[in-house]
Amino acid sequence: MGWDDTIVALATAPGVAAIGVIRLSGRRSFEIINQLFHSKDLHKQPSHTIHVGFLREGDIVLDEAVVSLFRGPRSYTGEDVVEISAHGSPFVQQQIIDACIKYGARLAKPGEFTQRAFLNGKLDLAQAEAVADLISSNTSASQKAALHTMRGGFSQKLKELREQLLKFSALIELELDFSQEDVEFADRKQLQKLITELSFSTDQLINSFQLGNVIKNGVSVAIIGKPNAGKSTLLNTLLNENRAIVSEIAGTTRDTIEEIINIDGILFRLIDTAGIRQHSSDLIEKEGMKRSFEKMRTADLILYLFDVANEPATEVKERISEFREQELKYLIVANKIDAMNEAEVRLAYAGIDNIVFISAKEKRHTEVLNERMIDMVLAGQIQTESTVVTNARHYHALKEVSTSLNDIKQGMDNKIPGDLLALDIRRCLHYLGEITGEVSNEDMLDYIFSKFCIGK
Amino acid sequence: MGWDDTIVALATAPGVAAIGVIRLSGRRSFEIINQLFHSKDLHKQPSHTIHVGFLREGDIVLDEAVVSLFRGPRSYTGEDVVEISAHGSPFVQQQIIDACIKYGARLAKPGEFTQRAFLNGKLDLAQAEAVADLISSNTSASQKAALHTMRGGFSQKLKELREQLLKFSALIELELDFSQEDVEFADRKQLQKLITELSFSTDQLINSFQLGNVIKNGVSVAIIGKPNAGKSTLLNTLLNENRAIVSEIAGTTRDTIEEIINIDGILFRLIDTAGIRQHSSDLIEKEGMKRSFEKMRTADLILYLFDVANEPATEVKERISEFREQELKYLIVANKIDAMNEAEVRLAYAGIDNIVFISAKEKRHTEVLNERMIDMVLAGQIQTESTVVTNARHYHALKEVSTSLNDIKQGMDNKIPGDLLALDIRRCLHYLGEITGEVSNEDMLDYIFSKFCIGK
Repeated sequence: MGWDDTIVALATAPGVAAIGVIRLSGRRSFEIINQLFHSKDLHKQPSHTIHVGFLREGDIVLDEAVVSLFRGPRSYTGEDVVEISAHGSPFVQQQIIDACIKYGARLAKPGEFTQRAFLNGKLDLAQAEAVADLISSNTSASQKAALHTMRGGFSQKLKELREQLLKFSALIELELDFSQEDVEFADRKQLQKLITELSFSTDQLINSFQLGNVIKNGVSVAIIGKPNAGKSTLLNTLLNENRAIVSEIAGTTRDTIEEIINIDGILFRLIDTAGIRQHSSDLIEKEGMKRSFEKMRTADLILYLFDVANEPATEVKERISEFREQELKYLIVANKIDAMNEAEVRLAYAGIDNIVFISAKEKRHTEVLNERMIDMVLAGQIQTESTVVTNARHYHALKEVSTSLNDIKQGMDNKIPGDLLALDIRRCLHYLGEITGEVSNEDMLDYIFSKFCIGK
Repeated sequence: MGWDDTIVALATAPGVAAIGVIRLSGRRSFEIINQLFHSKDLHKQPSHTIHVGFLREGDIVLDEAVVSLFRGPRSYTGEDVVEISAHGSPFVQQQIIDACIKYGARLAKPGEFTQRAFLNGKLDLAQAEAVADLISSNTSASQKAALHTMRGGFSQKLKELREQLLKFSALIELELDFSQEDVEFADRKQLQKLITELSFSTDQLINSFQLGNVIKNGVSVAIIGKPNAGKSTLLNTLLNENRAIVSEIAGTTRDTIEEIINIDGILFRLIDTAGIRQHSSDLIEKEGMKRSFEKMRTADLILYLFDVANEPATEVKERISEFREQELKYLIVANKIDAMNEAEVRLAYAGIDNIVFISAKEKRHTEVLNERMIDMVLAGQIQTESTVVTNARHYHALKEVSTSLNDIKQGMDNKIPGDLLALDIRRCLHYLGEITGEVSNEDMLDYIFSKFCIGK
């Protein structure tokens, strides 16, 4: 495989810094750098070596730079790659990029280096997508999930599923060639067993998506409760105890988010509950709470905060039944235990599940709250090196895989003819292949890589 | 020379990008990277080679990275240097830096890599300072001046001056050893000739500072004139015709600047003349103009704009005499020639020097204005590859050199004894040496390098 054009882009973040790296990839990479780098013929230098010298455009010295050479296929893209480590002046970098363009390169599109890596078979589509996830990762959990996929963990699992199914597909296709003879090469019992196994694995992956999504995008948390339950104090305590994340994650809209915190590598996005926090006193309280719930339905987790001096167990239980009715994940937070005898308080609310007793003001037991929040999210699902689906595209493809597996199962139960069964199996293989890119089309690839940064 | 500690820092601009480069320098660089990089022993790899692999902190995979090895003294700092090209996630980069620190590195101070390069004799002080200038360069003129100094052009010139003077110094010191015998080893006539030559070169360098400063920091330009002379239109025309620079140059205060444009590689900072532009009609006009002049005294260049239909030559000449009185550099801009016969207009203002006739509205002859602005600044001073002083520290040291040269000259005229002459020569040598760092002290170095970015 190969393209005629050579691409160039700044690979490091823009801005004044010590250095900036410009990346060239394509057939003419070495030819282009040789036009700028005069002190030796880089064509003759071995791969994976580094050369220091001045870059010149005609008589004009552009920079003193460090040039790294990677010969295809032993490079990121699989093509000849040259990395120019220039001084960190955006002006100087632009001049070097302009000179590369003058000598035949063109500016790379977003993700085009990784797209070429995929098209050259250096990594599969799921791995390529994990590169973008790694770059935007900002917790150890998202970093771990991205690296696991990048290293092929996810792809390996899918490949195993696909290969087993392929074998059966081949046998069934063979049957079709001998259709007049009514033979069965593919053992239906074994196929049934395989489909069951596949369904189990697929469902496991599909279920991991919720966790995967949490890892990638964080957990949205709504802190709700009556006025004076201590919501602002709790918010401040959570922010102080956990590292607050200031930066935005690229590509996620979060106009409603107020604060982001990191507890044990999981991001919690504390949703703006301004409308709920400030009940004006002339609103009927219950009506106000109802509205809060409506607004909070989109949250992944609700922290229901109440003041132990002001809200009896019966009232809290009412809230809980409302949460359950609406299938909301909740954690009940009994606040202001500092004002009373803790043992008595605990007794008063005995029998209520998912409850934590704290004093937000005195920071008592707030570490228990942190732990419970993490527990609520993980619910025992995270195991080391387990495969977690973090990508919405993969999730939707897996859903299609699941549907076609069901169709195969039903088809076999109804003893449908081999040619119809083969169609369902092919559909299942198609969606499995779409995830890792064994099946792909240009539009899909363009869409996926357009979300990358330029230079990657 | 050597330091016990190994330093680490992010060398690329912070922010999400394709890649980010982390730099290690010091005795333990290879030992530290070996703790993270397990797939081969990097200690055994040759210098200037590149290695791809996973970085691990214990069991945890941090990233897949490209590691470049530079063995001292063949490195930027002269020490063992390792550059880690990591994925462009600030979170991942921080983890790698933290791991390096865990294994014995410490965070580098601003400019510490370049400071080590200087202390290890990889570049002299003037060259080191030019690295920072190159990084903050944002025009081809500033880039060229920085690269010229970086490549040793400036240092070479100083070294020549210094070596000649050193010879005489040695001879005069020798005379002191034989002071009772009243011999003259150092030919006073030759010394006189040398001092004259040195003074000429030094004064040339000192004079180049104004130009150097213009190249480095730009030219401040005030556009002044009566209301309705067309100042806003001219400003817009200049901005449209020339590339407007949006970014700020680090380290310069410019709260009064409104717009920055680049004409032929020279930056022009168009100073905010809001106070001058909007004369309220109830102010006596002359008083208003006087205030404007006061405010504009700090500008490098004044563009005095007038409407040819409203300001006769006599009035313009009055303005000019005021400019001259205050020793201001000015360019007279006769505007709105589109409304009249151009030849007649030119005749009406004949005899006025430094005048350009334009129509800002119709963009007529504005290219002439651009050229004249450049001419005003360069005044024939820029020659290819000529040495230009751009650094205030160098300028002040050169001033001291000039003073001590004068003292030597006067001393010789007054036939002062050799030991006094030797003192003046030593003083002169001291200041020459301070520029290139042959003479330096820790405070001075700390001050110089503290202005660098971290990672350089």
